[in-house]
This record gives sequence, C-alpha cells and structure tokens, in this order.
Amino acid sequence: MPKETFEEMREKMLASAKQGIKSAYSSEEYALIQAMNAYLETTKSMNLMYERLTEWYGIYFPEIRMTSPKSLASLAVIMTGKDADQARIADAIGDEGKAKSVYEKAMSTIGREMTDNERKALIRFAEMTNDTISALEELEVYIKYAATKLMPNATYLTDEKIAAELLSKAGSLERLATMPASTVQLLGAEKALFKHIKFGSKPPKYGVLFKFPAIGSAGREMRGRIARAYATKLCTALKADYFTKKFIADQLKKTLDETVERIRASPPKPKPQAGQQERRFDRRRPQGHEGRQMGHGRQGRDRQRPRRRFN
Amino acid sequence: MPKETFEEMREKMLASAKQGIKSAYSSEEYALIQAMNAYLETTKSMNLMYERLTEWYGIYFPEIRMTSPKSLASLAVIMTGKDADQARIADAIGDEGKAKSVYEKAMSTIGREMTDNERKALIRFAEMTNDTISALEELEVYIKYAATKLMPNATYLTDEKIAAELLSKAGSLERLATMPASTVQLLGAEKALFKHIKFGSKPPKYGVLFKFPAIGSAGREMRGRIARAYATKLCTALKADYFTKKFIADQLKKTLDETVERIRASPPKPKPQAGQQERRFDRRRPQGHEGRQMGHGRQGRDRQRPRRRFN
Repeated sequence: MPKETFEEMREKMLASAKQGIKSAYSSEEYALIQAMNAYLETTKSMNLMYERLTEWYGIYFPEIRMTSPKSLASLAVIMTGKDADQARIADAIGDEGKAKSVYEKAMSTIGREMTDNERKALIRFAEMTNDTISALEELEVYIKYAATKLMPNATYLTDEKIAAELLSKAGSLERLATMPASTVQLLGAEKALFKHIKFGSKPPKYGVLFKFPAIGSAGREMRGRIARAYATKLCTALKADYFTKKFIADQLKKTLDETVERIRASPPKPKPQAGQQERRFDRRRPQGHEGRQMGHGRQGRDRQRPRRRFN
Repeated sequence: MPKETFEEMREKMLASAKQGIKSAYSSEEYALIQAMNAYLETTKSMNLMYERLTEWYGIYFPEIRMTSPKSLASLAVIMTGKDADQARIADAIGDEGKAKSVYEKAMSTIGREMTDNERKALIRFAEMTNDTISALEELEVYIKYAATKLMPNATYLTDEKIAAELLSKAGSLERLATMPASTVQLLGAEKALFKHIKFGSKPPKYGVLFKFPAIGSAGREMRGRIARAYATKLCTALKADYFTKKFIADQLKKTLDETVERIRASPPKPKPQAGQQERRFDRRRPQGHEGRQMGHGRQGRDRQRPRRRFN
C-alpha cells in the first residue's frame, strides 16, 4: 500500500470533520429548538408591543378597551380618526355586536385628534404588531408539525408546545430522553431550584410542565404529585421517541389517567410540623456558601456560642 | 337669573371635565413620548430577533457572518438552500463584492439541508425581522419630525433622539423644561443614582446624554464635565422651547462649543487622596438603611466596640 502524503491525509481529515459537523445537525430537532426559542422570545416582544400600543392608542381613544392584541392592532390600523364606519370596525375585530359599541364610543371620544404624521407612525407600529402576531401563528404551525413528528409519544401525553419547550431546555432529544424523571419535572425551574439549594427556600415542584392545564390548573395540594406522575410517564414516552420510535403513548396515557385519578381522590398528606420542617431545612443547607447568605453564618455562630460577659 | 336644575349642572360639569382631559392631551408631545418609547422597546425586540436569526440560520449556513441585521434577514429570506444565485444575493445584501464570497461559501457549506417546513418557518421569521427593522426606520422618521417641531433648540444642541428620550423620561415638556440642569444631566441614570444614594457607590455623571457622541466618546477624564456643560445649555434651550418658543440655539451652541473646547484644553483635576475620598463617602452615606447593607452595620459596630475577653 503506498504511503499517503501529508497533504492527502490533511484533506481526508478535513473532509471527515466536515462530515461530522454535517451529521451532527442532520436531525430536525435543532430546527425545532430554534423555532421554539424564537416563538418564546417573540411572544415576549409581542406582549411588549401590545402594551405600548394600548397606551399609545389610548391617547386618541381612551374609552376603548380591547383584550385581544390582534383586535387592538387591527382596529388601530383602520380607525385613526372619526372617519371609520361600523362595517370596517366589525371586519377588523370580528364581532358585530362589539363593533357598534366601539363605533359609538369613537364618535364621542374625548381623546386627542391625530395629525397626519402621528397617524402614519401609529399605523406603522400597529401593522408591525399585526405582522408579529401572524408570524407567531405560523411559527406555531411549524412547531406543532415538527414536535409531533419528532416526539409523537411525548406530544400525545402533553401537547406540542410543552414537548418542544422541554426539548429546547434540554438541548437535544438524546439528552432529554436520558434525563431522570425528576429532572424533566423541574426543567425550566432552574432559578427556583438553585435558590432552594443555596438558600434553603421551598423546592420547586414543576417547571415548564406548569404550563400544561392538567397540572397548572389542578388544586394546590395535588399539583406537585400530578407533575411527578406526568414527568415519570413523559420519561418513558421520550425514551420511546428517541430509541425505539414506537407509538406507546395511548397505553401510557391510560395508566397516567388512572394515577392522576387516584391522586385527585386521595387526601393530601398532612403537613410536617414546624420542628420537623426546621430539621429538614438545616440538613439541606449547604456548608460552603456562608459568604452569600447575608450575615446568616455570623448569626448562627453567635447563637451557638453565646458571648460570655462575666468570666 | 333662573336657578339651574341639578341635572343641568351635572351635564355642565361633565362637559367641562371632558374638555379638561381633551386639552391635557392637546400637545403633540404625548404622541412623541409614545413613539419614542415604542422605538426604544422595539429596538430591544429587534436585537433579540437578530440574535435568534443568527443562531437559527447558522444551522444551515454556519460559514456566513453578517454584522447588519437587515442584510442577514434579507439573505435568510432569499437564500434557504443551494438554489440562490449571485445576483439575488447581491440584491439582498447590497454589496456585490461580498455577494461573491457569500455565494461561494453557501455552495460548499457544511450546514444542514432544509426541509420545506423548516424553510417556511425560517423565512417567516426572517420576514418578521425585516418588517420590524423597516417599522423602526419609519418610527425614527416621525420622531425626528416631531422632536424638531416641539424642541427645535434642544434638538439643535444634541440630536432628535436624545431630545425625545429626555422628554419621554421626564414625562412632559413642562416638567422637562422646569428641571434643574443636574437632573437633566442624570435623566436615564436613575438606577446608578439610587445605588449611589443608598450604598455609596460612585455617583453617575450622565444618563441619556451618554448616547450623544460628543459626550460618550470624549476622554474618560472630561466626559463628566462635558456632560455638565451640555446639560446646562440644554436646560436653557428647553426653557426657550417651552416658554418663549424662540430659536436661540445657534448662540447657545457657540458658547457651548467654547466651553467644551476649554474643558478639552484644561488638564484634569487631581484625584482626591484616599483619606479625603473616605470622608466624603462616609458623609454621603445615609443613616437609615443599615438593614439593606448586608451585615455592614454589624461589622461596623463590632469594630468600634471590641470584644472584651478578659474582664
């Protein structure tokens, strides 16, 4: 076999490294993670825009209250003075009954009259808000499609956005599928978790999962237990999604529903008494962070070793 | 004169209250404040979108670096695979020379290949980013127009966006025009100011004014003094804008330029010695907030009253 020259070997190495990078991104999960993060960030931006639009539009029509960002933005685009007619308003907010009251309020408004330049600026801002809302809707379509394709089991147990957010927090499907259930349960609650570990505050019971109605809107006493049940089954579902790629979620869902039913029927555990609580808290408090506890360490030392005044 | 009935009086009162509200918003400054706040918030949102787009697009074309949000978004809209041609790329980023290198990089990319659904989602997000950028540009046009109209003097001394931001921080032109120069100088530096008052950190030297190139890019040693000179003249300019509505900014600008020239020519004052600094710091520290100083008070007391071990 002829020996390769250094140049040839270098070329091969480079090609193989490139191939490695290419295959690392071959799964669609990375696109889903990006889309989900874009969705979450854009939702925040959109809420800011909605608040600003409410305030800005409120100079001209302080009487008008709109709870939906989309209706408000559409209304601001078409009605910027007293020239709007009822049909166009109904068209913009999609509610005939409300259009009449909006129209009447607009006709007798005590707000400021717009100049042409103000109108242009306000309409442009409202249009941008509208465009952001419609982009969010389209991103959601993609997220639903991709999450169902990549994680059919996890999506079946919860919903597409919860599954996609768990994935984006974990970083990759492999990491998510090999996480323990307790970690999946607390994904998204990192801040509360580290506050608990460092300062001994109450431990969090759920992270992203709280957004799922079956967990978030359950009674306070059982939310934590329901979240644990969901996390356990989600873990199994995610392993099926990543490893076997078989659909087992209908059976999982059945068992999960039974467990949740049992939790709902069972009485809440009695709360631990004050003394016990204190002991658990002390045991969990780490030893190495006294500097960050705002004089806590000093107080503790003082309490244990009382000052001897008279020798 | 016939006595008015209660009903008639009530009607009159209501009408007068409505008129009062209407006249309170009769100045265009409120629209300018809203537009400026919208501009500032949307700039933040746009930066988030740009960062996210860089990361998302980077999965497909990791080799491509774009420093302008607009070029990146335009590129992401037209080039989502290997089908793009050089002319369209040049059209999108507006740079023939760079288009060639971008095209070559795209042809030999090691990034992921897009599926149709990913393409749709990414293009939609890029379009939204593009729309946000163009809305910002149009908001800026309005801000420049309205700021020049309402505050010709202040705008002449600094620029339209600085004047508008000062106005939005103050809340109304009347309040801004009647503020002392030291307050105008620190508008926008509230956080640093209160940190100084509460915890004795270094006092801030400028707020919004730092964004003005003549102040922000001056030498460290003279920035504070230049900011003070600007704030003083701005105060006079704002009073002219609000009260007399005469244009006096050209004279103000001449005096201001002379002052700034003098500051630039003069050597910086010698720094106070360590001992003096300590004294000033102590005098300024307030007395009533020891609880917030993280054990500072206790340490101080311990130092003053040493523990007597042997009686």
